[in-house]
Amino acid sequence: MKILVINPNTSNGVTEKIASIATKAAGPQTQLDFITAPYGVPYIATRAEALIGGQAALEILADHKDEYDAAVLAAFGDPGLGAIREMIDIPVVGLAEASLLAACPLGRNFSIVSFSSNLEAWYQECVEWHKMEQRLASIRMLNAPFSDINSVQSELEDMLVDLAQKAISEDKADVIITAGAPLAGLASKVRDLIPVPVVEGVAAAVKMAETMCVLQPRTPRMGAFAQPARKPSKGLPPSITRLFGGQTT
Amino acid sequence: MKILVINPNTSNGVTEKIASIATKAAGPQTQLDFITAPYGVPYIATRAEALIGGQAALEILADHKDEYDAAVLAAFGDPGLGAIREMIDIPVVGLAEASLLAACPLGRNFSIVSFSSNLEAWYQECVEWHKMEQRLASIRMLNAPFSDINSVQSELEDMLVDLAQKAISEDKADVIITAGAPLAGLASKVRDLIPVPVVEGVAAAVKMAETMCVLQPRTPRMGAFAQPARKPSKGLPPSITRLFGGQTT
Amino acid sequence: MKILVINPNTSNGVTEKIASIATKAAGPQTQLDFITAPYGVPYIATRAEALIGGQAALEILADHKDEYDAAVLAAFGDPGLGAIREMIDIPVVGLAEASLLAACPLGRNFSIVSFSSNLEAWYQECVEWHKMEQRLASIRMLNAPFSDINSVQSELEDMLVDLAQKAISEDKADVIITAGAPLAGLASKVRDLIPVPVVEGVAAAVKMAETMCVLQPRTPRMGAFAQPARKPSKGLPPSITRLFGGQTT
Amino acid sequence: MKILVINPNTSNGVTEKIASIATKAAGPQTQLDFITAPYGVPYIATRAEALIGGQAALEILADHKDEYDAAVLAAFGDPGLGAIREMIDIPVVGLAEASLLAACPLGRNFSIVSFSSNLEAWYQECVEWHKMEQRLASIRMLNAPFSDINSVQSELEDMLVDLAQKAISEDKADVIITAGAPLAGLASKVRDLIPVPVVEGVAAAVKMAETMCVLQPRTPRMGAFAQPARKPSKGLPPSITRLFGGQTT
Amino acid sequence: MKILVINPNTSNGVTEKIASIATKAAGPQTQLDFITAPYGVPYIATRAEALIGGQAALEILADHKDEYDAAVLAAFGDPGLGAIREMIDIPVVGLAEASLLAACPLGRNFSIVSFSSNLEAWYQECVEWHKMEQRLASIRMLNAPFSDINSVQSELEDMLVDLAQKAISEDKADVIITAGAPLAGLASKVRDLIPVPVVEGVAAAVKMAETMCVLQPRTPRMGAFAQPARKPSKGLPPSITRLFGGQTT
Amino acid sequence: MKILVINPNTSNGVTEKIASIATKAAGPQTQLDFITAPYGVPYIATRAEALIGGQAALEILADHKDEYDAAVLAAFGDPGLGAIREMIDIPVVGLAEASLLAACPLGRNFSIVSFSSNLEAWYQECVEWHKMEQRLASIRMLNAPFSDINSVQSELEDMLVDLAQKAISEDKADVIITAGAPLAGLASKVRDLIPVPVVEGVAAAVKMAETMCVLQPRTPRMGAFAQPARKPSKGLPPSITRLFGGQTT
Repeated sequence: MKILVINPNTSNGVTEKIASIATKAAGPQTQLDFITAPYGVPYIATRAEALIGGQAALEILADHKDEYDAAVLAAFGDPGLGAIREMIDIPVVGLAEASLLAACPLGRNFSIVSFSSNLEAWYQECVEWHKMEQRLASIRMLNAPFSDINSVQSELEDMLVDLAQKAISEDKADVIITAGAPLAGLASKVRDLIPVPVVEGVAAAVKMAETMCVLQPRTPRMGAFAQPARKPSKGLPPSITRLFGGQTT
Repeated sequence: MKILVINPNTSNGVTEKIASIATKAAGPQTQLDFITAPYGVPYIATRAEALIGGQAALEILADHKDEYDAAVLAAFGDPGLGAIREMIDIPVVGLAEASLLAACPLGRNFSIVSFSSNLEAWYQECVEWHKMEQRLASIRMLNAPFSDINSVQSELEDMLVDLAQKAISEDKADVIITAGAPLAGLASKVRDLIPVPVVEGVAAAVKMAETMCVLQPRTPRMGAFAQPARKPSKGLPPSITRLFGGQTT
Repeated sequence: MKILVINPNTSNGVTEKIASIATKAAGPQTQLDFITAPYGVPYIATRAEALIGGQAALEILADHKDEYDAAVLAAFGDPGLGAIREMIDIPVVGLAEASLLAACPLGRNFSIVSFSSNLEAWYQECVEWHKMEQRLASIRMLNAPFSDINSVQSELEDMLVDLAQKAISEDKADVIITAGAPLAGLASKVRDLIPVPVVEGVAAAVKMAETMCVLQPRTPRMGAFAQPARKPSKGLPPSITRLFGGQTT
Repeated sequence: MKILVINPNTSNGVTEKIASIATKAAGPQTQLDFITAPYGVPYIATRAEALIGGQAALEILADHKDEYDAAVLAAFGDPGLGAIREMIDIPVVGLAEASLLAACPLGRNFSIVSFSSNLEAWYQECVEWHKMEQRLASIRMLNAPFSDINSVQSELEDMLVDLAQKAISEDKADVIITAGAPLAGLASKVRDLIPVPVVEGVAAAVKMAETMCVLQPRTPRMGAFAQPARKPSKGLPPSITRLFGGQTT
Repeated sequence: MKILVINPNTSNGVTEKIASIATKAAGPQTQLDFITAPYGVPYIATRAEALIGGQAALEILADHKDEYDAAVLAAFGDPGLGAIREMIDIPVVGLAEASLLAACPLGRNFSIVSFSSNLEAWYQECVEWHKMEQRLASIRMLNAPFSDINSVQSELEDMLVDLAQKAISEDKADVIITAGAPLAGLASKVRDLIPVPVVEGVAAAVKMAETMCVLQPRTPRMGAFAQPARKPSKGLPPSITRLFGGQTT
Repeated sequence: MKILVINPNTSNGVTEKIASIATKAAGPQTQLDFITAPYGVPYIATRAEALIGGQAALEILADHKDEYDAAVLAAFGDPGLGAIREMIDIPVVGLAEASLLAACPLGRNFSIVSFSSNLEAWYQECVEWHKMEQRLASIRMLNAPFSDINSVQSELEDMLVDLAQKAISEDKADVIITAGAPLAGLASKVRDLIPVPVVEGVAAAVKMAETMCVLQPRTPRMGAFAQPARKPSKGLPPSITRLFGGQTT
């Protein structure tokens, strides 16, 4: 199985964190490649940034989909996932999506815990897009300063554990999702400090992509993700122009 | 009141249709300007096209927001509306949004009727994003061929009226929304052929934008649309780079 | 456009407050008239009082509907709105309804803030009747004494601003609706003291009524608000007897 | 136990039907009295008629509540039930309410079947007010003519049985509610013609009122049905004026 | 009417508490019998214990259903109720079910209050199985030690009253359900200490069983509780083997 | 990874079908063992049979959990899954659960298709227990006779494909789940006959169990699946007696 892991953020440090966890999670027959977004922001936190990151991911997939069996969209919030899913004919799994789904067999309700309240509105809409609100206990966000996105995980570890505790005792979460690619790896570190299961999203996403490879789903010809008719466009990047169906004459 | 009407499609013919209806609906003190997307597709129908159209609209607003009191995003499906709303400090109303809201005082449930089943999945997600599913009776789409997006309205008028009848009798719709900018103007034409109210979306959107001008809402400093912190980016169009907060150093 | 604004409360002081705000909000081509309920209570706060106020509004509209293009039912809670909508063949907009709808483009969730916990159960049912609970963050009510319904707004202003703050920080409201006709005008006064948009309901209702005039919806012959068959009655006020279809023989 | 059964319709023939079924259902220690609304319409079918019927029932209860342990509001649709419940300090059970609740132990989903599509919108809102939509399979209504409200039951019996069959096979109803006081007694007549349980609403309502007498619930001092503060009014019928708290000085 | 009350717990002391309240609630024509589960746990608190208790109740009913007109499953949580309902052709009412349904005419929302947080997850799933979450304000559980399940009611009475108060003031409960057979009788004791109605579940269940006897529902041949086809089994207790349809050959 | 696959049905033929698919899906480092229920029914189809099958699965896990890293409960409907999850300290994945979760990245809505309408009510409740109704398009069941549960798959293949087509075109399913262990293997056979992805549940369950092994979730000490306190019991099978905490003294 060849799986492409796309980091729609521009930060290479984040890609490295993702790669380290993803590699550990992958089965022996899985080959993983990693691509970092060539344009955009270091770390996507808002709907506007997700609009950009979604387009970057779509371009990457337009160029590379034929080389892979499946892909992982490795930003919690799953930027552009709907667009990708209707245009790209290999299975693509979102980091948030895989985290939410993997949390389900571990409890009735999960809470999402992360490091910046800027992310909250976007994460909330992501859970709603996946129609998983019925299992969402809460989204809890820190508002503490940190010096660097690459070290945010260790800088705020203690506060994130406390926040998870609050989600469990006050919001009745049965499972904690430590959300956001910069927190990749945190789940196993804090495993014994939190009294309920903690989901490592990157690992869940890699395993879900492997699951898709095994299921070998056909490309839908009907339904919400049937590939749309080809359509001319103008002024778009070459890979998207080709993906959509050529240029306006 | 100065209101900017943005057509995120690249089709000037559609912009003209919108302009004609919008001008009739506007109050005497309203000044309307119209801008057509410089890049993208002639008519947005899918999530991938909406990703592109949303960015085009965001660029237009980044450049022009200071000249207007409010704006209308004149594509049903409201591409990029969430992103726009958190970044742009004037009120922006979506064509779908205004149609759904205007339908509410006219009945318990509305149906959305349009000309291409390609649009259905995206429209469904749009209604869900607005959290209005509780009032959605159905989305009914034609699958008939038509020769030109600029004349689709007159080509398919009879079939659209039949489809609306089915939505009323089979899905219990109390109100019909004839969706999509290419159908601008149809509502008043078929008014007496359909036994329930029909919403003219462009008119509803212009009036909702005027309402926003009267309400003079402040820019939120908290909540789901509080403007996010400025953030460096790389490789983005100049207007978006400025809007986000400058280039990565 | 001729719009009738009905105050289903018996308090003329409240009618004056409504008129002052409504007049400012109306467009230059709008003519507004105001009628106060001839019987009932000074300020409707409960379902039982709403039953009475709804009948008073229905009588007023039975007598005057032919003189107007649209009407506003100017009591938050929208007493009798369903009954009015099925019997009266001009568009009628509720004060609560218009406030909820106008809040939608301003945020994901709104909170309703008002001066008396007596109102809470009725307001809650009103939001549910409009099927807008998905966007309701909370209803927050003061329990503080005040001397006069006509001055409750200024007496409790500071406490209402504090209550709005709580709705924002604790209930995650993106928009505040200061509910109830006695609070007409408060929204613009406290605009800069509250970190999210505040909806002035009376203004929203006038603009929504104007929107309905522009949309010119036909009277439904099918659906949930189709006018019912005429029916004889006995012992009812003359205007209602006529509206229903004559007296039992 | 003394239970008052109120028919908020003005038709004595309907009261007799109700009385016949109610008497059979009541336990040996239950005393039933019946009052027919002195004003209104022969048979309530719409929200406007329910507004009137609700006031009539409120007046009857204001005059007679001290003589009874509980009351039944014997019109499906439960006109004025919320208003009654907050003002009247004995338990009052609605005919629709009791039918819905009694249907629950008999199946997962129920359908409401009745004789006139005029009733549908009001019944739908009634189910929603009781927050029982999750268990509603469908509302199915005949549109057939009938000569007299007092004989509608026998005139349309065969068609109603057919309609119930459709609700079972097409809408997956596990239980049928034959709704509306004019259909009192039908359930037992058609019991063996319909392959699922059929709820006799009047019987269910009498038993629910007896249940309330046994439970002896206290009058709430808090919550959604706490009795509101006394309030002056003007121009209202004497019994309502007293109930609300006296006349405006 | 002959009604069998089944205690699926093995504790005879709990059966006695149930019998004392049930006998007071029953009408003069009702004959009640009581059976305690011959195997299982003294007091069911979890899903696993409910699996066992459900089977015990099913065996008791398989042996005794022909002697009774209806039955009560007297453990809050209603262990095995779905299984019982599809296999047993007399009406069977659950203790939780009857409590939830009886709470409905007494308020908009109810809270469930009980003595051990171990019970919470199971109770929550029970409310969801009955599709009554829309009316659930909260489940509030003590975590205090007690010496004996037979005296838990008096040992923790004061703390349970305090907990109910919190459910009313913080969770907006209009009605309190003191849940669990060991609390049978508490509702009437604390009636005047709690400002909203308190439901005595055992009384509600007996009255609901009597109501079912009066309604005489037919055994469903279609729908979610239609009796399934007979099926051979192996290794099951004799009464269940017979109920299912005989042994595997 | 050692994974135990439990067939809670008594049919060895079904176990063989499951084993054949499971073995193909498992990764190279996974060791699978299979156990068939020693008592119960050949094929669980109802809530009552699920009560028995759930206990059988609980007994098997009580005896064998220490030998495995995770387990699969290989009956669609997931009998006893809640009970198992709170008592057993290794991850256990249900066949229905894994199918529903794996369907999510493949479409917005899924339909469940199977061979006997007897299964429908139980499957419906299973989807609700997993809180996945928001993504359920429909459950479609055949009512055709078949000669043997071991060959039902090939006997009814054509009719099941037709049924799936109806779910897609009439119920708007984006994904088909061919439900029930006797249909194991059908998904890949009909892959190219159905225009949307088809989920092979057994494969999905094995991959989800492997995912759980990689995530290494800790045993919850709080929340809805925290292991309950040990409790004495009487009359239960030895393995369950031990699991619960010993015999009543």
